[in-house]
Amino acid sequence: MSGTLPASSVDEFQIIADLFAPLSRGYPGALNLTDDVALLAADPDHETAATMDAMVAGVHFLPDDPPDLVARKLMRVNLSDLAAKGARPFAVMLAAAFPRGTDLDWMQRFAAGLAADVAEFGVSLIGGDTVSTPGPLTLALTALGKVAKGRAILRSGAQAGDVVWVSGSIGDGALGLRAARDGWPGLAAGHVSFLAGRYRLPSPRLSLGAGLVGLAHAGMDVSDGLVQDLGHICRASGLGARIEAAKVPLSAATAAALATDQTLLASVLAGGDDYELLFTAPAHATEAVLNLGRRVGVAVTAIGSMAEGEGVRVVDANGGTLSLPHGGWRHFSATETGAGA
Amino acid sequence: MSGTLPASSVDEFQIIADLFAPLSRGYPGALNLTDDVALLAADPDHETAATMDAMVAGVHFLPDDPPDLVARKLMRVNLSDLAAKGARPFAVMLAAAFPRGTDLDWMQRFAAGLAADVAEFGVSLIGGDTVSTPGPLTLALTALGKVAKGRAILRSGAQAGDVVWVSGSIGDGALGLRAARDGWPGLAAGHVSFLAGRYRLPSPRLSLGAGLVGLAHAGMDVSDGLVQDLGHICRASGLGARIEAAKVPLSAATAAALATDQTLLASVLAGGDDYELLFTAPAHATEAVLNLGRRVGVAVTAIGSMAEGEGVRVVDANGGTLSLPHGGWRHFSATETGAGA
Repeated sequence: MSGTLPASSVDEFQIIADLFAPLSRGYPGALNLTDDVALLAADPDHETAATMDAMVAGVHFLPDDPPDLVARKLMRVNLSDLAAKGARPFAVMLAAAFPRGTDLDWMQRFAAGLAADVAEFGVSLIGGDTVSTPGPLTLALTALGKVAKGRAILRSGAQAGDVVWVSGSIGDGALGLRAARDGWPGLAAGHVSFLAGRYRLPSPRLSLGAGLVGLAHAGMDVSDGLVQDLGHICRASGLGARIEAAKVPLSAATAAALATDQTLLASVLAGGDDYELLFTAPAHATEAVLNLGRRVGVAVTAIGSMAEGEGVRVVDANGGTLSLPHGGWRHFSATETGAGA
Repeated sequence: MSGTLPASSVDEFQIIADLFAPLSRGYPGALNLTDDVALLAADPDHETAATMDAMVAGVHFLPDDPPDLVARKLMRVNLSDLAAKGARPFAVMLAAAFPRGTDLDWMQRFAAGLAADVAEFGVSLIGGDTVSTPGPLTLALTALGKVAKGRAILRSGAQAGDVVWVSGSIGDGALGLRAARDGWPGLAAGHVSFLAGRYRLPSPRLSLGAGLVGLAHAGMDVSDGLVQDLGHICRASGLGARIEAAKVPLSAATAAALATDQTLLASVLAGGDDYELLFTAPAHATEAVLNLGRRVGVAVTAIGSMAEGEGVRVVDANGGTLSLPHGGWRHFSATETGAGA
């Protein structure tokens, strides 16, 4: 792990030794973050799944979000990608560009958040880089996971007739951004707090994802918005999909928000940052998927099906096609803080 | 590979498909950059060496540096870490935070630079993330290489009596920053251009590094400055080192600059950004090291030796100890653009 923070505020080598090196424990190949590389041992029965997502203050999280939650969100959006493939995470690498003048206290809280998730998810921090920037806090994380050879759940494996499933509840991320940024007059405080928490601290569905290996034909996580992300599966699989808006699982908080303003449905279906799993499985696997959800304690809900054709059709309770703003995050304004990894 | 660039300038999925996906060719596990992860096959005879370095415009490169050279420097500072360990690179992942409003032409030139080095070094771009930032261009690259199991050249392997070697010439990076930023009145134009080129486009010593496996006891690349980096080897190996300033190999350009101003010696010895290999090898390997250098076409120069003790002592031609500003980059001003990865 290398570092080039300016001497003015803190010493980068001390930061690495004090705050980050302890997070490498348990992984001898991390070389205690004192060398130029980490060494990963080969495991002949497994492939390594590698993913890398970046986050920028003011774009992917709020500049005044608590540092520990920023670190944990960075970790979790990456682990969510591994979860969607059925991979078990084992290591991460962090590149952090800290704004000049970032103080030690802030970094300690950031590292504490990382430490909490390193422990929670059983991964090791095996390397990376710390630099200073005249711009906003900018973070990139590379996450590595293991999946049995040839068994990763890809976007491209969906088959016509597959049931389309999602985990947890959808829409909390997009509404949670609004809740975290502006509060939400008119919505119960408990709901506002729940939604903001869902935006700030996603839950990677690792046990669910690992259990879906051999059950799911295709999968990904919902980061850019349910409709857009299902579109990715459609394109990669050469199929179309039809989902029923009324079946999309909502939290009590999102349901309450929708009850006050039906136009929020577009944000629910096309907003991002849910980090739930979106997957397809054959109809005969339905019982097995439901049992898996019960076993790992994560709700799984069938919301539609895959078919020949292309594109995603969202239908309302009467079978009419809902017209949604096309796609997801790409069409939000550039000043909005949300979605992404 | 995922992306969240704003729609205002360019479409991120199109950017990934048009500019970056072609760079994944030859690596089936990259899944054409259309999935959430890349899949790395296990190779039971090898370990994977993983490194990750970040660069920020205005900190690690000049904001108006040509985009293709920015991409190639990013690639090369990472490959240099692999070279120092004796690893052969095979894949990279890129996280790029592009300033809002970055135009397609800029990105195309950036991608062209990346493509050139992907071809030159035989690696594949297997994933990453593209996002937008209100701040400066901020880049992180993860590079993966292969090294025979247990054979990586670590910082910690130096032994008392080892000869200390460097490749190429030292000091060009630090002086090159000045040449690139300010020109250099009084220095021949050819020298100025050579130095700026060395700053902008380092040469990772991959063949040399691979050849050093089994010859070198310890190694790293010179990124933070020769003296500071040798200090890292000393600490990791529990030894001290003594180097002779007069033996440190200089390019003609750096020698010419030094002739005009002897105080530049501190920048030469303690500046950064050389990306040459610094390694130690037993005295009986001297002929083999020299032969290797000839075979791969890279100068290798013995500059001192390892001994019991601690710290790096730099001696002048009369055997007196030179006093240098302690360490490297950490003590440059925070507004200077240089060193780092």
